[in-house]
Amino acid sequence: MDPLMTAKLIRPTPILDKKKAEKNISKLKTKADENNLVFRPHFKTHQSIGVGKWFQSAGVKKITVSSVKMARYFNSAGWNDITIAVTANWAETDQINLLAELSTINIVVDSLETVEFLVKRIENEIGVFIKIDTGYGRTGIHFNDISQISRIKEGVDKSRNLRFEGFLTHNGLTYGCGSTSEILESHNESVEKIVSLKENFPEAMISIGDTPGCSVSQNFYGVDEIRPGNFVFYDLMQHSIGACDFNEIALLLACPVISKNRERNEIAVYGGAVHLSKELIIDSEKRNVFGRIVVLNDDLTWTNTIENASVSRLSQEHGIISLRPDDFDKIELGTFLGIVPVHSCLTANLHGGFLTTDGEIISTINKTEIE
Amino acid sequence: MDPLMTAKLIRPTPILDKKKAEKNISKLKTKADENNLVFRPHFKTHQSIGVGKWFQSAGVKKITVSSVKMARYFNSAGWNDITIAVTANWAETDQINLLAELSTINIVVDSLETVEFLVKRIENEIGVFIKIDTGYGRTGIHFNDISQISRIKEGVDKSRNLRFEGFLTHNGLTYGCGSTSEILESHNESVEKIVSLKENFPEAMISIGDTPGCSVSQNFYGVDEIRPGNFVFYDLMQHSIGACDFNEIALLLACPVISKNRERNEIAVYGGAVHLSKELIIDSEKRNVFGRIVVLNDDLTWTNTIENASVSRLSQEHGIISLRPDDFDKIELGTFLGIVPVHSCLTANLHGGFLTTDGEIISTINKTEIE
Repeated sequence: MDPLMTAKLIRPTPILDKKKAEKNISKLKTKADENNLVFRPHFKTHQSIGVGKWFQSAGVKKITVSSVKMARYFNSAGWNDITIAVTANWAETDQINLLAELSTINIVVDSLETVEFLVKRIENEIGVFIKIDTGYGRTGIHFNDISQISRIKEGVDKSRNLRFEGFLTHNGLTYGCGSTSEILESHNESVEKIVSLKENFPEAMISIGDTPGCSVSQNFYGVDEIRPGNFVFYDLMQHSIGACDFNEIALLLACPVISKNRERNEIAVYGGAVHLSKELIIDSEKRNVFGRIVVLNDDLTWTNTIENASVSRLSQEHGIISLRPDDFDKIELGTFLGIVPVHSCLTANLHGGFLTTDGEIISTINKTEIE
Repeated sequence: MDPLMTAKLIRPTPILDKKKAEKNISKLKTKADENNLVFRPHFKTHQSIGVGKWFQSAGVKKITVSSVKMARYFNSAGWNDITIAVTANWAETDQINLLAELSTINIVVDSLETVEFLVKRIENEIGVFIKIDTGYGRTGIHFNDISQISRIKEGVDKSRNLRFEGFLTHNGLTYGCGSTSEILESHNESVEKIVSLKENFPEAMISIGDTPGCSVSQNFYGVDEIRPGNFVFYDLMQHSIGACDFNEIALLLACPVISKNRERNEIAVYGGAVHLSKELIIDSEKRNVFGRIVVLNDDLTWTNTIENASVSRLSQEHGIISLRPDDFDKIELGTFLGIVPVHSCLTANLHGGFLTTDGEIISTINKTEIE
């Protein structure tokens, strides 16, 4: 390993393969352009102005975020067309007002009560999307509840500062799919449902969001905007459901080996739930997997996975990796292994920044205040 | 609700009941004193100089941490007797040297290789504990492998700057117990195993760590030091295994209600995996529980739980709570609910600070750099 690089590896460190991330951005940007879609990527995955610059270089101008604080953070770096894609939080109305003086802001609502609350308090023009549920069952109005949707839209239309933009959905069902064909089926069904609203509301913009559907589908008929986020890094979960190739995963956690147990053929890395998150997938042999293991190259890229090796147990700071005896012997105390995370958004959220394969340190949003 | 308090609740906010935390501290400090035990609480649970002051007021002088960075942070506030209770990371030797100029530092090892590596590089006197495995099977030397333990101890004894302190274990098995009596049984077994080392190493200090065992047991025969951490806050997991009362839990997450669905009797709060962590427990009806729901009082304390209500699904920013119809009607959009976390250490780790029931904002360790 290049000493310049290893000198930077001291503790569990999130490594970002810039080339892979740029390729992931370019691929979806191209797809959006080819399908005449507004590309409004979700920045909650990286939460980083530095990574945002890679999107800027690819021609991206509009973004999605998941909090008012995150909108303010990206606005401070010049982003000025932002959708806050979590159902509006009444207590943040003042903050939304302030932000709307600086940037084009869209918010999301799914009730008349929220619209009526906002109508009295929003002082600058903001765009409003009505959240639609196409089957995921988290938030939003059921796509065929036209009367309810109409009531909310009328509430928006009556107001001076709220501007109706259209309908927004997040088809989270694709994250539970078992294959690419299942993703395509779920995606098509969700798109068909939300696009059906154009019959009653022909002027409405249709915005969809999930990474699996946006990654594998070519069908965006009737859709106006896509908001995927995770695709910039991808992760084990996306790979396991068929949404990406393993070599498209751009984020990993480098962890030092701190303990070896020959009887169990297990090693412990310094790198636990506070570095990776407790998100897990179940493998074909019904074992918990908190991450897969790769060998780090000198330049912090990775090409070789250690077959059958995964993080099988995870406590606050420790990850336990079970190995075949010959692999066990090859891995030395004090060296760093790469862990491919299960859910890159949650892993990235646990760190103050990334070390890129170019040797650059890129920081993320400040997490020192009460969020 | 007192407007002064609610004005501070804008986003998902970790609330700390200072009185409960102080009571939890005092209870275990008293138990340690009564049993002539060194009380060296683990500060990884709160990671906060402000909360550390509550321990200081209770007469605590020695602490445990889980990283060199955390040791540096607490040392900056005057703590100068610190055990870093994760098996030593070779790459942080320089940082350990720097720290040992400022503070009494103990580290943990479980291999002769690590001792031999450190012997050549440690420049200031530091204490060394040998990590012992009494059955948990994470890191450490098996308690009855006397020859291996002797070899490591000899390596330490031969060195100029390493000072052998004794044996340290973390009996993580108690976290998987189903009742107080199971905790007691596991605790007694682990204590007996590690204390048996005094036959061969009579001068060694015996240090044990887990919150469940330290909370419920009165048997510390042969033990010299306890290092529990979680007990300052406790949580649902500790309550579910019988390690604490529900009303001893001192941390909760206040979350705004952002969406209601009458058909499903479900509400969505703004408060997800990035605020709570994905740690879960399985309830008696085999359902996933990511948190229990309580009603917030005006002063941000809580006394009433909403029966049978829990966070049943959790995505990055959303928590979904299923309710009985009458409870559903009582909970209004825009209000804040309290969520009792499953694992308070992981929840606290996701925030830059706490709001206390005294209205004070207490910050935690800076998470803006790459850890």
